[in-house]
Amino acid sequence: MKVVLKEKNALYPLPVALIGTEIDGKPNFITIAHLGIGAMDMVTLGMNKAHYSNQGIITNREFSINIPSCDMATETDYIGMVSGSAIDKSGVFKIFRGLLKHAPMIENAPVTMECTLVDHYDYKTHDLFVGKVEKIYAEENILTNGTIDVAKVRPMLFDMHQRKYWKIGEPFADAWSIGKKYSR
Amino acid sequence: MKVVLKEKNALYPLPVALIGTEIDGKPNFITIAHLGIGAMDMVTLGMNKAHYSNQGIITNREFSINIPSCDMATETDYIGMVSGSAIDKSGVFKIFRGLLKHAPMIENAPVTMECTLVDHYDYKTHDLFVGKVEKIYAEENILTNGTIDVAKVRPMLFDMHQRKYWKIGEPFADAWSIGKKYSR
Repeated sequence: MKVVLKEKNALYPLPVALIGTEIDGKPNFITIAHLGIGAMDMVTLGMNKAHYSNQGIITNREFSINIPSCDMATETDYIGMVSGSAIDKSGVFKIFRGLLKHAPMIENAPVTMECTLVDHYDYKTHDLFVGKVEKIYAEENILTNGTIDVAKVRPMLFDMHQRKYWKIGEPFADAWSIGKKYSR
Repeated sequence: MKVVLKEKNALYPLPVALIGTEIDGKPNFITIAHLGIGAMDMVTLGMNKAHYSNQGIITNREFSINIPSCDMATETDYIGMVSGSAIDKSGVFKIFRGLLKHAPMIENAPVTMECTLVDHYDYKTHDLFVGKVEKIYAEENILTNGTIDVAKVRPMLFDMHQRKYWKIGEPFADAWSIGKKYSR
């Protein structure tokens, strides 16, 4: 039987990411899972305006996306619990940098992306940022046949309903393939 | 060791959804995973302009998001392989409707959302749609304590790198909680 729910959204789970910015010359990170892909090389971040990080993105028009593994759950969740306006989060992670000047990345994160800001849309409670992925960095040991193996990345998946982090399970079908078995 | 990858995006896995539209008075569906959350009750869909479904969203300013379970992988993948411009996909799923006139939903899908179009951003190759979730419907048997239990939904997670669908694994930590254990 169908029931109508009071939740505001049901598009879960989404992958957890640490967004790296620079504010007043200092690296800062925020944990979000309200994000997505907007086009092949484009990402979207939905960030409440109360967050300290938003100004870093707006000012520098650069940011990083860092995919933490399950092993990083404690630091990742901590980063999401405290604001950079009150607590200096620049020392939580060892940082490395790539091409961009204002997109600090996390050495420990198995996958990181440097992004430039393409558009900033101003909604009532949230900033919607559209970014272009400029470069992707990965730890060599999470690759299989030269590309990212999510089983080795072990990303954290976030579900708002039960407010839990989930592991990824097993691959069970090939995309653009299993559909060939469909018949009416 | 860090390596630079040639991939265009690394924000995977993302949940697979079937987007329901109405075109020329007929229900149509498309499978996408390039989507996300933009604000608490807002979703983003990144859809290549070549798709037939985009016009339905633009014309009616309504659409549905249907979360298929792993059991629906064959139909879901099939829907992503054929275009509604060539093949009538209206009979693949049993349809139900809620409040909106042009947002057909899939009876079989454990979770469905009716959405209205808030904004349409026109990018080079893709339409970026921002929608508001108007109502969420769920099968009663996928709830735990009155809210969605993703372990019971068994969503399909998509990974572009290996072009595979993945199951969700186990919950392993509480959000806004495990971070309390952090100390430098």
